[in-house]
Amino acid sequence: MKIVIIGANGTIGQSVAKRLEQEGHELIKVGKSSGQYQVNIEDAKSVAELYRKIGSFDAVVNASGDLAFAPFADITQAQWELGLSSKLMGQVNLVQQALPYIREKGSFTLVSGVLSDEPIFAGVAATMVNKALEGFVQAVAFELPKGLRINLVSPTVLEESLPAYGAFFKGFTPTNGARVADAYLRSVAGIQTGRIYVVNG
Amino acid sequence: MKIVIIGANGTIGQSVAKRLEQEGHELIKVGKSSGQYQVNIEDAKSVAELYRKIGSFDAVVNASGDLAFAPFADITQAQWELGLSSKLMGQVNLVQQALPYIREKGSFTLVSGVLSDEPIFAGVAATMVNKALEGFVQAVAFELPKGLRINLVSPTVLEESLPAYGAFFKGFTPTNGARVADAYLRSVAGIQTGRIYVVNG
Repeated sequence: MKIVIIGANGTIGQSVAKRLEQEGHELIKVGKSSGQYQVNIEDAKSVAELYRKIGSFDAVVNASGDLAFAPFADITQAQWELGLSSKLMGQVNLVQQALPYIREKGSFTLVSGVLSDEPIFAGVAATMVNKALEGFVQAVAFELPKGLRINLVSPTVLEESLPAYGAFFKGFTPTNGARVADAYLRSVAGIQTGRIYVVNG
Repeated sequence: MKIVIIGANGTIGQSVAKRLEQEGHELIKVGKSSGQYQVNIEDAKSVAELYRKIGSFDAVVNASGDLAFAPFADITQAQWELGLSSKLMGQVNLVQQALPYIREKGSFTLVSGVLSDEPIFAGVAATMVNKALEGFVQAVAFELPKGLRINLVSPTVLEESLPAYGAFFKGFTPTNGARVADAYLRSVAGIQTGRIYVVNG
């Protein structure tokens, strides 16, 4: 399969890319500033332009999207906006703009995270955005044309991310990139749609 | 209790206002263009100004918030934005901006809807926004100061709304305003927090 992977250079993206390449898939690696193509997922026009340049493909796999952490009383409008425009609408853009280009029976694999069901301090925007992604995937699965499928990978904190995020996730048993990559592969290679693949430690 | 009710003039708002008045509460009725005060919930400054004018109060009860319905492939940026800025961030604004004014042990009651768990055609944005509200309420309940509580009322379609929305909800057994008002009262008068009160038909 020809698979477009966004965020290919990130912690999750690198593990997913390795796993999909081991399976013999052709990857088109996309990043904000690295990779074969660059895209700003917050901008629907940038996403449409990316797909126009790539042409046709069988799957979109996303491992990108930003959001902000802050105590509730202090979250600024810009911090709310980051999660909504990047991690949420960025991923919605990746799906909606792909419709004219993705091949029959193709698939989308998006990413949320453990905070959707396990709130932590300063994580209100993260829980909100991750839950929104669950709703988006579960609803849009029924509306996608051309036999397209869509699933969501929801990993807990990664071992590889503990140096950066460990302080937020005290007591959370970490998973690792290889296990998260399995969930992405399961989404790409399987028959299910509208699923949330939870990856626990 | 002194209760600020936003959307007091809408289908749900009128039923809730009646029920809370029967219980002997003092209501401050707020609307976009009607009521004792006016507010644009999409604008955090407008919400802050509303609360500053009212002073102190014991509860905020919301029955307002807009979103758009459209087939997924056709949803415009403006239609996505409406749900995010009005029904989602409008309600987030109503909570966040109230923190300096609401009294100890006060409560917030927000509104989502049945589409969070029951996708319908053209309802992707609705499912997404309603799920985001669930995540927001469940996460922020753990962070609220002063013993404040927050709950979400999630009604199915109302009998009173069938003339306008019945075509979207074929086969959904409707509820009515009085039952939805019970759920709001339960949130305001109870001890629970982080709850989603589902009101089925």
